[in-house]
Amino acid sequence: MAVSSIPRQTLMRLPVYLSYLKGLGAQAPANISSAAIAAALNLGPVQVRKDLACLPCTGRPKTGYVTTELIRALEHFLGYDDTANAIVVGAGKLGRSLMSYSGFAHYGLNILAAFDTDPTLVGTQCDGKPILAMDKLVDLCSRLGVHIGIITVPAEAAQSVCDLMVRGGILAIWNFAPVRLSAPGDVLIHNENMASSLAVLSRHLAERFKQ
Amino acid sequence: MAVSSIPRQTLMRLPVYLSYLKGLGAQAPANISSAAIAAALNLGPVQVRKDLACLPCTGRPKTGYVTTELIRALEHFLGYDDTANAIVVGAGKLGRSLMSYSGFAHYGLNILAAFDTDPTLVGTQCDGKPILAMDKLVDLCSRLGVHIGIITVPAEAAQSVCDLMVRGGILAIWNFAPVRLSAPGDVLIHNENMASSLAVLSRHLAERFKQ
Repeated sequence: MAVSSIPRQTLMRLPVYLSYLKGLGAQAPANISSAAIAAALNLGPVQVRKDLACLPCTGRPKTGYVTTELIRALEHFLGYDDTANAIVVGAGKLGRSLMSYSGFAHYGLNILAAFDTDPTLVGTQCDGKPILAMDKLVDLCSRLGVHIGIITVPAEAAQSVCDLMVRGGILAIWNFAPVRLSAPGDVLIHNENMASSLAVLSRHLAERFKQ
Repeated sequence: MAVSSIPRQTLMRLPVYLSYLKGLGAQAPANISSAAIAAALNLGPVQVRKDLACLPCTGRPKTGYVTTELIRALEHFLGYDDTANAIVVGAGKLGRSLMSYSGFAHYGLNILAAFDTDPTLVGTQCDGKPILAMDKLVDLCSRLGVHIGIITVPAEAAQSVCDLMVRGGILAIWNFAPVRLSAPGDVLIHNENMASSLAVLSRHLAERFKQ
């Protein structure tokens, strides 16, 4: 069973550092310290220092990191210089919006195809990518060595899609359905829960108007 | 400045408990303990107990919570029994998929309208909701007391959209653009970062194939 040695919250902050550093563009200093990154992003300096310590490049006291090296190390660590193939199951509005999101290319993710049960969608394309029938899923994933599966089906259909993905050799699932999925221990499931995000927003308003 | 007294990670887990409890349906026991919820969701029992302790209903030793009371307390705490109006800026595929996502009604969120700069979209509708020109934003939000804004525009346009929302009285921003936004301290910004989620998935694969 593969267990990532890096805390999930750390992993989720690394793209934020990378996007900040790349956003500096021509104004980027030759060297940058974890404290300067922390200040710019309004994060704790200890947290940023610890997060960056999991990378194979090291900052030097006083001067900090060589900016270009730090960018390269983050990109490599996050796998942006490698391309991973993925499939989407559920070619509704959300599935199609993910299929045509051009940003994924920068993150090394390439969506090959979508799968759906709707016969009016099967056989059509979205952004040049085919929408296929569900019975092609296992074979396509095993044949092409696809390891990332994205689930954008309704809650009640999500577990059976997850089971199919596991049969096809998928090892990492990005789940947009509002349901907890069961999968073997070596399959990572990352839940994108809209309700959780909304909870943060609406609680802020509730606290705000209580005052 | 309003600062939520509940940790964001706790808040983000509450909808997961609620969806589990509601999913039990007719099979729900009359009473349920935090330990039973923890076991079902594969979470730590101490964490679940602490999370539920922020609700105004209390569990009893041995028997736990009255299930229906716990569900009501969670719904009330998360504001699902109140409806908050929201607007979307950016009526591209992602914006439109959010506008037509029927699940938001369960979470007490009502998207009134979208705004876009594209003249071919302005004046049209998505799922019965109007897509309006940007210059209507400030007035509509202040007039109707809209406090939640959803940003689904490209990174380079997001800060100016955020500034407009703040002028219109928006207090909580759900930001899907891959950029850090600046806003006054009483405006909450919740970032939905696709790159962060992808980092979790691709790192899992990298660790897996290293073995």
